[in-house]
Amino acid sequence: MTSAQGARGRFITFEGGEGSGKSTQVRRLKAALEARGIEVVLTREPGGTPLAEAVRRLLKEPTGDSPCDRSELLLFLAARAQLVRTVIRPALASGKWVVSDRFSDSTLAYQGYGRGLSRAFIAAANDFACEGLRPDLTLLLDVDPAVAAARMRAREAATHTAADRIECAGEDFHARLRQGFAELAAAEPERIRVIDADGTEDAVGEKVWQSVRRAVDDMV
Amino acid sequence: MTSAQGARGRFITFEGGEGSGKSTQVRRLKAALEARGIEVVLTREPGGTPLAEAVRRLLKEPTGDSPCDRSELLLFLAARAQLVRTVIRPALASGKWVVSDRFSDSTLAYQGYGRGLSRAFIAAANDFACEGLRPDLTLLLDVDPAVAAARMRAREAATHTAADRIECAGEDFHARLRQGFAELAAAEPERIRVIDADGTEDAVGEKVWQSVRRAVDDMV
Repeated sequence: MTSAQGARGRFITFEGGEGSGKSTQVRRLKAALEARGIEVVLTREPGGTPLAEAVRRLLKEPTGDSPCDRSELLLFLAARAQLVRTVIRPALASGKWVVSDRFSDSTLAYQGYGRGLSRAFIAAANDFACEGLRPDLTLLLDVDPAVAAARMRAREAATHTAADRIECAGEDFHARLRQGFAELAAAEPERIRVIDADGTEDAVGEKVWQSVRRAVDDMV
Repeated sequence: MTSAQGARGRFITFEGGEGSGKSTQVRRLKAALEARGIEVVLTREPGGTPLAEAVRRLLKEPTGDSPCDRSELLLFLAARAQLVRTVIRPALASGKWVVSDRFSDSTLAYQGYGRGLSRAFIAAANDFACEGLRPDLTLLLDVDPAVAAARMRAREAATHTAADRIECAGEDFHARLRQGFAELAAAEPERIRVIDADGTEDAVGEKVWQSVRRAVDDMV
């Protein structure tokens, strides 16, 4: 129940497709951890440093030419390298916990399974960008495509925003993505916990907390 | 002596450290090739597309956090992937020749030999970014460090600009860089021709043209 001061912090990532509720659950988990005396740093990908946010703008709102698939992958990795080096590693070293909205698994799912780029290259490039850092725990929010689509429409209506380039990539793309995430989870069941995220925010939040709680009790 | 219309164009790159006179020689070679009826596209790295020029600004004029070494490498590669896909390959396919101010060898020299990042990873990532494209001919302009330093000072005075982040990297860095380029040239003597670039613009231009001429006569 005490702060993890002195010890290395823990690194927890949320993964899943668009409309799976990651951003909401990231904030809830931060509050729940802080209630137990744990200092938490939130990050999101791509972004989290001025340079990485500038890269995010190139990816999300291209003003000139849209990045080709390989350039897109390399931009995501460049943003990640900067985030790991300047934010995540220092936070973990100082005993804080880091909770990230997306990380390496998204790259394997989107650019590997989704875009069809070499997964072997992506895995090697991820390791290079992260200097070998891997999450201690990954929560994969799995959601029915119809539920995700309804959430996306509601978000667009509420925020008066249009879907971005990746969100618009089409049904086939999103089906490959979901399949990719499932395969990644099957390959690393200890690290990646699959959470059924079709329910309400509270219901999903409770499942997330049950998955994290054991880890927390083990670690602090 | 005729245009290479119908055939694939040729891809020629210039490499070398700061102050080696690459940009000047790139323009001279373009004029010499055009005088022989060859259509030429000039590119520079990083840059050459709106996206790649935006990445160039992140590398050359960081406004927030300077890229860490790994992020720097990945940004260069992202710019290259976009340039190859949207400019270089289409130009070559239409029979034009492409002359580039820097390409993959610079990445091995600067980020590998200079920064000390894994050269095996850089080579694999270069191939990924370029989809296997390699220059037909590379002209390495090798210059004495004292000559290069004098040229850099003259350029700064003439253009009222300060040296950028990489240009400021220090003597040790530039010594490793020169050594790196020399090793790359030794490993691929057929592709990479070393040009002594200490002399006047005309003298270096003549050496460049002698190196290219045989290739041109063979190819058109």
